Amino acid sequence: MATNSVTTVWKENMLFESDNPSGDTLFMDAPDEGIQSKGLRPKAMMLSSLAGCSGLDVVSLLKKMRAEVDDFKIVVHAELTDEHPKYYDKVSVEYHFYGSDMKEDKIQKAVDLSVEKYCGVMEMFRRFADVKTSVYLHVQ
Amino acid sequence: MATNSVTTVWKENMLFESDNPSGDTLFMDAPDEGIQSKGLRPKAMMLSSLAGCSGLDVVSLLKKMRAEVDDFKIVVHAELTDEHPKYYDKVSVEYHFYGSDMKEDKIQKAVDLSVEKYCGVMEMFRRFADVKTSVYLHVQ
Repeated sequence: MATNSVTTVWKENMLFESDNPSGDTLFMDAPDEGIQSKGLRPKAMMLSSLAGCSGLDVVSLLKKMRAEVDDFKIVVHAELTDEHPKYYDKVSVEYHFYGSDMKEDKIQKAVDLSVEKYCGVMEMFRRFADVKTSVYLHVQ
Repeated sequence: MATNSVTTVWKENMLFESDNPSGDTLFMDAPDEGIQSKGLRPKAMMLSSLAGCSGLDVVSLLKKMRAEVDDFKIVVHAELTDEHPKYYDKVSVEYHFYGSDMKEDKIQKAVDLSVEKYCGVMEMFRRFADVKTSVYLHVQ
């Protein structure tokens, strides 16, 4: 059983600093009257976690499958509920691949393996949201 | 209905850059043989989202209640499942407050309001994990 631990320290006004097992830290805050924002919005950061987790799977799998691409990005759109507590109830994850000679079947397989088997953040999202995924190949 | 959108771009090796509604960006990666880590681990970042979301509620509520403290931090421990997809199934959120004349009832009330009513990330965590919260006052 593995455990992750993170400590998040209040710095000033609405600013927090959080550590990470990588050794890096990140800053979070919220819009506050008359004070310049210095950090990330924490709820939207969850969408980065989702894309990062799955993206790392996909890059690693494409390398193993010898199906590298030139460029790759993930766009996540997430709808929030209207009532408090406001959480993401509909999430769309779009995988965009760019290259001149892409192996479509291997790319689809890599995405499927991440979505269905490996990505723990995707599994967590499925517990609270209706998650749709889609793959786009942009031939260059 | 509000929507959050985040774009996450593959940069090189295992490195990704993700944007945020604040205008800031963050870097994520995973340990990779012989290559220096340059970013955050995305799954652990979810624990920062949780602490940041609830921490911002609490700071805002304590200000409204005129119950400010000298220092404040949140420690999150989260256990991962053993099998893929590995997700957090047990989560502990410890709220630590520091000060000389702290208003215990208001502090507890602020945490309760965040945990039970306002924090959307906490609501999402409850859908996939057994979440325990605790409050510690450190009189200085």
